[in-house]
Amino acid sequence: MELWYTEKQTEQYGITMKIRETLVTEKTDFQDLAIIDTVEFGRMLVLDGMVMTTVRDEFVYHEMVAHPALYSHPNPKHVLIVGGGDGGVVREVLKHPEVEKAVLVDIDGKVIEYSKKYLPEIAGELDNPRVEVIVNDGYMHIHDHKNTYDVIMVDSTEPVGPAVELFSKGFYQGIYESLKEDGIFVAQTDNPWFKADLIQSVNRDVKEIFPIVRVYCANIPTYPSGLWTFTLGSKKYDPLLVDETAIPEIDTKYYSSRLHKAAFALPKFVEDLCK
Amino acid sequence: MELWYTEKQTEQYGITMKIRETLVTEKTDFQDLAIIDTVEFGRMLVLDGMVMTTVRDEFVYHEMVAHPALYSHPNPKHVLIVGGGDGGVVREVLKHPEVEKAVLVDIDGKVIEYSKKYLPEIAGELDNPRVEVIVNDGYMHIHDHKNTYDVIMVDSTEPVGPAVELFSKGFYQGIYESLKEDGIFVAQTDNPWFKADLIQSVNRDVKEIFPIVRVYCANIPTYPSGLWTFTLGSKKYDPLLVDETAIPEIDTKYYSSRLHKAAFALPKFVEDLCK
Repeated sequence: MELWYTEKQTEQYGITMKIRETLVTEKTDFQDLAIIDTVEFGRMLVLDGMVMTTVRDEFVYHEMVAHPALYSHPNPKHVLIVGGGDGGVVREVLKHPEVEKAVLVDIDGKVIEYSKKYLPEIAGELDNPRVEVIVNDGYMHIHDHKNTYDVIMVDSTEPVGPAVELFSKGFYQGIYESLKEDGIFVAQTDNPWFKADLIQSVNRDVKEIFPIVRVYCANIPTYPSGLWTFTLGSKKYDPLLVDETAIPEIDTKYYSSRLHKAAFALPKFVEDLCK
Repeated sequence: MELWYTEKQTEQYGITMKIRETLVTEKTDFQDLAIIDTVEFGRMLVLDGMVMTTVRDEFVYHEMVAHPALYSHPNPKHVLIVGGGDGGVVREVLKHPEVEKAVLVDIDGKVIEYSKKYLPEIAGELDNPRVEVIVNDGYMHIHDHKNTYDVIMVDSTEPVGPAVELFSKGFYQGIYESLKEDGIFVAQTDNPWFKADLIQSVNRDVKEIFPIVRVYCANIPTYPSGLWTFTLGSKKYDPLLVDETAIPEIDTKYYSSRLHKAAFALPKFVEDLCK
């Protein structure tokens, strides 16, 4: 018998992968959670029927959430991750020795619990003493922490279920206020092939709040269309003005100093969405 | 009733799309050919069970085969396209007014015939007077045309069926000899997630023949992994030394002068394959 996981990324398009076994399926207080062992991509976290991360290709997303923002800030000591309960972004953030504290706020403690148990390659740094894990609503957390963080990273699911408010203008305004006076934030903002409207509306909202707004892309095979966008808002530092030669060679598989500015060079149809 | 086309891109991973109707299925002298109308990506050409092009995302591949090489050559008058019977690369090549003649050599006349009939958005320039269409073996054509072309583009299928020889070192040597003394060639060289070995071996072979070898990437949703590589070999001109500000704004949806050099900035794991 062969079992295949199929995700409809749109009503009429999807990916399908052969699986070895289903390790977890649970309805948490916030979403449907599954961990499935796939043959091609290894173990995979699925929330509300959407691939969140796989052991094989997770490095792309997690590196590209963490490093462009961190290397655009001269001294990122205090970092907040909203969502990201699998721990992948935290692992990347800790590669920056100047980060004194990474606070992770995920609304769903079950994501954290099961990631630690079944995805140790990804979640392995969640118990690091430089990390504080808080199970709470990210929206509330930023509301209660004004002028606190150097960098805020929004590692959310798609804008359905618990993450809807994480794509609202009010949330971006809250992030602005939760950042210090030279802070930077970055959010995953879905793909330009099937969610062009979302990228456009986020871009418009963030531009009304942050003086510097940049969008960059990365290729993530198991995400819809394979082309993912990230939107960065900054109060002071422009990621395109970074001295790339000063970026150290760290242990990554996707990000590098050579890619830092190049990732912001967008395909023309994506560029047009961000005008 | 719903009909879905599913392509196993590996033994354990694939894409699946809802279809409206199948327009052509035919066993030609060289390969299995199908044209299918899909809901998400429009009409789609499938050869030997692999998506070659779709009306919705074809622009990425065709622009990225044509423009990086053409804008790296100061005066590309004579261009050869090996394969590419759907006409998409030809359409892009003709956007360069300095190209006097584009010769297209595809081994399978049926690809040309059906593309003209069912994919006019893509094949519409095959009858342009600046284009010469030859139904022949590309390998033989380059053998018979020494010192002839300014730019050669290899728009082949994957290295199975009729395209196997188009990934051989002998073919690259033939291309070298078919180019003029300052010629450039580019080939599609598959994806780094599932075909890393192929990219490595092509890179090694081409480096033994051409003094300048560069690899670049583009995102193509319907191709395996969504991340596609192109390998460029050049006798004289380095695409990274092009003055991007001199590249004109032409009618494209993916390629732009801003993307020209950035496309050559590779994810680190791809960079490592090309060392």
